[in-house]
Amino acid sequence: MAQLGEFGLIERFFDRPLRDRNVALGIGDDAAIVQVAPGCELVLAVDMMVESRHFLPGADPRSLGHKILAVNLSDMAAMGARPRWALLAGALPAFDESWLDEFTQGLFGLAEAHGVALIGGDTTRGPRNVCLTIAGEVPAGEAIRRAGAKPGDDVWVSGTLGDAMLALAALQGRTVLDDAAMSSARRRLDWPAPRVALGQSLRGIASAMLDVSDGLSGDLAHILDASGVGAIVEVAKVPRSAALNAKLAGAERDVALEWLLAGGDDYELCFTAPPARRDEVIALSNAEIGLSLIGTVTSDAKQLVVLDESGTPLPSVPRAFDHFA
Amino acid sequence: MAQLGEFGLIERFFDRPLRDRNVALGIGDDAAIVQVAPGCELVLAVDMMVESRHFLPGADPRSLGHKILAVNLSDMAAMGARPRWALLAGALPAFDESWLDEFTQGLFGLAEAHGVALIGGDTTRGPRNVCLTIAGEVPAGEAIRRAGAKPGDDVWVSGTLGDAMLALAALQGRTVLDDAAMSSARRRLDWPAPRVALGQSLRGIASAMLDVSDGLSGDLAHILDASGVGAIVEVAKVPRSAALNAKLAGAERDVALEWLLAGGDDYELCFTAPPARRDEVIALSNAEIGLSLIGTVTSDAKQLVVLDESGTPLPSVPRAFDHFA
Repeated sequence: MAQLGEFGLIERFFDRPLRDRNVALGIGDDAAIVQVAPGCELVLAVDMMVESRHFLPGADPRSLGHKILAVNLSDMAAMGARPRWALLAGALPAFDESWLDEFTQGLFGLAEAHGVALIGGDTTRGPRNVCLTIAGEVPAGEAIRRAGAKPGDDVWVSGTLGDAMLALAALQGRTVLDDAAMSSARRRLDWPAPRVALGQSLRGIASAMLDVSDGLSGDLAHILDASGVGAIVEVAKVPRSAALNAKLAGAERDVALEWLLAGGDDYELCFTAPPARRDEVIALSNAEIGLSLIGTVTSDAKQLVVLDESGTPLPSVPRAFDHFA
Repeated sequence: MAQLGEFGLIERFFDRPLRDRNVALGIGDDAAIVQVAPGCELVLAVDMMVESRHFLPGADPRSLGHKILAVNLSDMAAMGARPRWALLAGALPAFDESWLDEFTQGLFGLAEAHGVALIGGDTTRGPRNVCLTIAGEVPAGEAIRRAGAKPGDDVWVSGTLGDAMLALAALQGRTVLDDAAMSSARRRLDWPAPRVALGQSLRGIASAMLDVSDGLSGDLAHILDASGVGAIVEVAKVPRSAALNAKLAGAERDVALEWLLAGGDDYELCFTAPPARRDEVIALSNAEIGLSLIGTVTSDAKQLVVLDESGTPLPSVPRAFDHFA
């Protein structure tokens, strides 16, 4: 069993029965074959997560299996696409049965919840690295892009921001949280919930959208760049947890503002929509995922202004996380 | 420039103009959008290459850029599919402009030769690792799978086998080659030429097919497993270079037989076809890529018999490379 080999490993851990009639051929050949629904375009994205960079050595394998799919599902959500199929490539330092058991529990738990079929992959030995490609469908012409925001549009964000970075800071001893706050923040860091249904519901409503993975300020700047517009955002309206709110009101305000505006790993949706569609957006807000109106699109090309609680523009806006900065 | 950042890096090195009218949205959004041709199925595969495992530290970045695409194109060839779109994820220990320059030269050189568009990706810092996902098209129902070989079918292989492992052995000092033989063998190791056109030409002719990436014996065994058949293969008929042939005739015969039958990294096509189609197969053989008839499919389920030059079955068949063995 310790010498299961690559093919045995794939068969045992990854080759699950598929209930997807559009998969003509799954794991076990040189490539997989699927049928894209008539009238749909194909939507493709890939994300790689590296040990010590995106997750700590010793991280819970179940959360890692969940997260590598979640970040990709979040990209599908951000396009308004329906996720369908995934391919997983991974490097592991050694064959580790219990690690793989737990990793696949996390991966398939989320995959099944979203009706995503794992149809292919590649496994090798090497420094721990997981790389997932997601393929989804969207009715032709209906994907929600980053370009499309118009001056006067509302700026919206789902859920709350900043808790994943708050959890990381606490884990690294840079701040202190009580047990309840820590548990809740860690859930945001380790078990992000991609807004897949919300993303699809926003087709025909949102004028531009992306997911907040590198931090609100930097990600919103991508919408502004792509759309050739600016925006004014009010800090007071940016949704946050009670724990992060307490930090914002206290001695750690500066760093808390960074977590809120530029922390990243949020996997919430940020989108723009005409004010005329405001009732429809509000109708999509619910107890599980709130939607917050945080600002307005301006004609001031590519200029992001962030107002503090007194209405004064921040002299400098915290910037997004950059893997190569 | 040394601090170009992830977004600058992607824009500068990877975001090339696309001439593909079926790409609705390329690099620069949360995901790419493409249109699969009507009547076609979508074919998907992924391969990951890790430093020290699939390539040596200090390996030529141009060859690496070529090879990570080549191994994926070879998977498309093995299905009889037309490769269309690629997504690249990569981890690099540090931002290195000249490395990226050379890597992308190799990558885009091969991509342009095959009309493949790079439509998305992800870059991060970490131990060097490149992961490429390929998407291609095949007329619905016409992909060539591993299952489908019938007793009595011919077994064919393209090109020559074993030279990539011969080159690696020479690089590692396990054997000696003269300059001309070394140069030719290294070309097979570093610059594999995927048999993309050949693969598509075999649609409707081959009954089963795969590409030889892990070694002939192990890969052919996958066809036998999937098809529920056996095969007899004659060593004398397995195509090899003059350099490898010399090793097979000399004191290094045993290890040379391993390179030939189980070396891997060949990226040739191995396929079965009914004897009635033999003239059509031969017509596809040309000066650039020869096709060799190496054996026959038998009804002896999953049994691979390899006959030596005297017609005697090898007591044990060298087995394929396994990343987790």
